[in-house]
Amino acid sequence: MITVLSGGVGAARFLQGLVQVVPQQNVTIVSNTGDDLEMFGLHVSPDIDIVIYHLASAEGGSASGGGLVNPETGWGLAADTFHTLDALARFGHDTWFSLGDRDLATHIHRTHLLRRGHTLSQATAEIARAFGLDVTILPMTDDPLRTRVETPDGLIDFQEYLVKRRARDAFRGIKLAGIQDAKPAPGVIDAITAAEGVIIAPSNPIVSIGPILALPGVRGALRQTKARVIAVSPIVGGAVIKGPAAKMMKGLRMEVSAWQIGWLYQDFLDCLVIDNADAADRARIEALGLDVVVTDTIMKGMAEKAALARRVVEAIRRKAT
Amino acid sequence: MITVLSGGVGAARFLQGLVQVVPQQNVTIVSNTGDDLEMFGLHVSPDIDIVIYHLASAEGGSASGGGLVNPETGWGLAADTFHTLDALARFGHDTWFSLGDRDLATHIHRTHLLRRGHTLSQATAEIARAFGLDVTILPMTDDPLRTRVETPDGLIDFQEYLVKRRARDAFRGIKLAGIQDAKPAPGVIDAITAAEGVIIAPSNPIVSIGPILALPGVRGALRQTKARVIAVSPIVGGAVIKGPAAKMMKGLRMEVSAWQIGWLYQDFLDCLVIDNADAADRARIEALGLDVVVTDTIMKGMAEKAALARRVVEAIRRKAT
Repeated sequence: MITVLSGGVGAARFLQGLVQVVPQQNVTIVSNTGDDLEMFGLHVSPDIDIVIYHLASAEGGSASGGGLVNPETGWGLAADTFHTLDALARFGHDTWFSLGDRDLATHIHRTHLLRRGHTLSQATAEIARAFGLDVTILPMTDDPLRTRVETPDGLIDFQEYLVKRRARDAFRGIKLAGIQDAKPAPGVIDAITAAEGVIIAPSNPIVSIGPILALPGVRGALRQTKARVIAVSPIVGGAVIKGPAAKMMKGLRMEVSAWQIGWLYQDFLDCLVIDNADAADRARIEALGLDVVVTDTIMKGMAEKAALARRVVEAIRRKAT
Repeated sequence: MITVLSGGVGAARFLQGLVQVVPQQNVTIVSNTGDDLEMFGLHVSPDIDIVIYHLASAEGGSASGGGLVNPETGWGLAADTFHTLDALARFGHDTWFSLGDRDLATHIHRTHLLRRGHTLSQATAEIARAFGLDVTILPMTDDPLRTRVETPDGLIDFQEYLVKRRARDAFRGIKLAGIQDAKPAPGVIDAITAAEGVIIAPSNPIVSIGPILALPGVRGALRQTKARVIAVSPIVGGAVIKGPAAKMMKGLRMEVSAWQIGWLYQDFLDCLVIDNADAADRARIEALGLDVVVTDTIMKGMAEKAALARRVVEAIRRKAT
């Protein structure tokens, strides 16, 4: 059994490779829900859906292995239309969060299940099953928890910061509203303690992995588990492939480097997988007490995704070099 | 002020004519909500929406005066698509109630308002305003009330009977679930007592007008109002233009005739407007103590709709012949 702590696009692309080399039944994904939001009364779980849409197969399969996700954005469904969203503008609703017509079906269904008393875990399991997945996807918590970004203009909800304001505001940190009352969802701690290996996906360490680690019990479970804990660095050549991680790390006066990733996770990490472009960081990372795997971490196509996953799984199964 | 008791398509087409001859500000519509339903957690009010979509103007107007409604079906929005509904099938949802992508925006917004504590009256007013209407549309009640059809297979929800089962089951009557606790929505009784005229639209007398009349206080208000109360017969030449009214009237051992309409409403009606094709019923209807207006009631185009409305408004303002 392999457990993956997961954010959105970077994690989803890594998971596309992982399910090429590990049976889906043996994979448990713990998904960040700090990015969740309500739009016009519908519960949207962006990171969960990004993973599901990446892993779901189009009928007849797809040569690219790109799943059902919109390949241009990394979120939403391929070839979706936006008629409902356009029509919602008539009622004064915000339409900066682009929810397509087919995508909306997922949010309508999730909201329907939640209103009927299902937990987010139960709703997520049902949605993943409806998309034909055999992986287990656990929201990190069933409790309401919202990541808010500290900016000079005050606290801003995460999606508003990222999407509506395009991450333009200076980043001073995050607040996790609800964290004091949030518990890990059923199965999350077990998935860490009982796994053969735990993988920290190449996701934003501040706003994607950070909220998962902040949940009571998660960091302790990672420290204590007998599973090998391996992170894939989202930093490549001192930069970020996609998203605001570099800006956020700088805002917290961190180095934008693979070493910084190792530093952030050093209390529970066994091994860090870094890109060839960051090979010079190797000694510094080893000095943190971590094993280091240096490889190609840029996941251009399915072959690269599977190759990276294979290296990570090998590093779980034997001491890597 | 003119108040119209309204069902769906027949009433909406009549109302398109009425707003040609009476300012929208002077028209109050009391809409049947017995047909309302929940689909995948969304509150759908078919009769209210049919009226709104008929009366709303496409940008730049429309020569046909057909509003935004789908002209082929009489419900839903013109040129709508069904991507969300198709995608909901993945989750096992019923898709026999054809809700288009743009139409869904209305139901999402209504549900959002109801969840936030708005009444159906308040939600309806806001939706009508968003569609640019100046008429007042009142749901007959803010309370849950559902029309169920008695059939040999037992009680069936109205839309399931009509749409899913295509009104094929033998009709034995209706039950109005919730009627004992339902109150007329704010303004409904006033709209009847304070009007210059009350029009019973050419709607199904059993399942469209019947539920409105069954609400406590409505029938009494119609009997007591000083307003002239005029019905437009939905029966033309002993048949029904559209819908299951004839089957339902037969199922209740009624005559399918203009006279039967007068008979059903005789305790509160002043005048019945019937089609030229039913002129032979005139004496029988007058024998019920009603005035009769004989005219062309088939509303082919906007000119015929306006002409019919003009005749009805004239009959409100002076004793008609």
